[in-house]
Amino acid sequence: MEISKRELKDPRLRKFPDKISLIPIGKIHSPFKEIKGIPIQFSMSKSRGYIEIFPKYKPALKDLDGFSHIYCLYYFDLVKLPIPLQSKPFLEDEKRGIFSIRTPFRPNPIGISIFKLIKLEDNCISIENIDVLDNTPVLDIKPYISEFDYVKNVKLGWIKGRIKEKLS
Amino acid sequence: MEISKRELKDPRLRKFPDKISLIPIGKIHSPFKEIKGIPIQFSMSKSRGYIEIFPKYKPALKDLDGFSHIYCLYYFDLVKLPIPLQSKPFLEDEKRGIFSIRTPFRPNPIGISIFKLIKLEDNCISIENIDVLDNTPVLDIKPYISEFDYVKNVKLGWIKGRIKEKLS
Repeated sequence: MEISKRELKDPRLRKFPDKISLIPIGKIHSPFKEIKGIPIQFSMSKSRGYIEIFPKYKPALKDLDGFSHIYCLYYFDLVKLPIPLQSKPFLEDEKRGIFSIRTPFRPNPIGISIFKLIKLEDNCISIENIDVLDNTPVLDIKPYISEFDYVKNVKLGWIKGRIKEKLS
Repeated sequence: MEISKRELKDPRLRKFPDKISLIPIGKIHSPFKEIKGIPIQFSMSKSRGYIEIFPKYKPALKDLDGFSHIYCLYYFDLVKLPIPLQSKPFLEDEKRGIFSIRTPFRPNPIGISIFKLIKLEDNCISIENIDVLDNTPVLDIKPYISEFDYVKNVKLGWIKGRIKEKLS
């Protein structure tokens, strides 16, 4: 959490929220017009499209095109809530806890993809690796910074040995 | 976007949302009780604490402890909206677009940290690398899977050369 002297609410009035309200800042224009055929993960997609950032947020895109990759946070707006808390991952037989799989069917259906940034033009970010349905609402864009975001020596849990076998 | 035959809304009734409503699924218990002194990035923190997942979501934690690292998505509830769309990153003199920096002051103030999972016990996940204020609302937990989430050969933009110099 990077903190400076910018505007904060008064911490003495802080109250744990019952719900949190967000607003779409843009939408993803994707070649995938229906659920069928969408790649399972961004890392397995070469498909191209673009993120349309709504005009009022255009100043927030300054300097983004220096980065080759971006995190895109988006909302799976077709997920019907509430979801079951355990389910079978793609091609698997055993039910897993939702927090240990990458399904869109989550209590808060937020997705994260790391897209390759091809070009920034006006309020549109051309991207590669799309694994998202056309017209998906976008919540945030952050630069991917390997010095922060790459973790060495990870342990993979139930998915170990299943990625190359089944998904690539 | 991993898709199976689970419950979806009717795509014919799909309408782009004006706003999106989320609910906290837990809270972060952190040694940082005030803004001052919070590490700039999770990758620069060795501090420990735990994520309390609210009891109703406990079944969603099954199998998570097989993974050594998790993405935690949380909400910066002290950020006063709206935020300026450009601002100076920590220790920098030039204003950058919000989407090209990692500040909490964003149109949707969602943070992502990759925490080391120390232990899963009941509905609590003990973690390392905390860079978040105590009592921060949690939105989602996902396993960190380097086969998906590690991107090689990235280009860093304005932050290049500044990370080791200034932040470590």
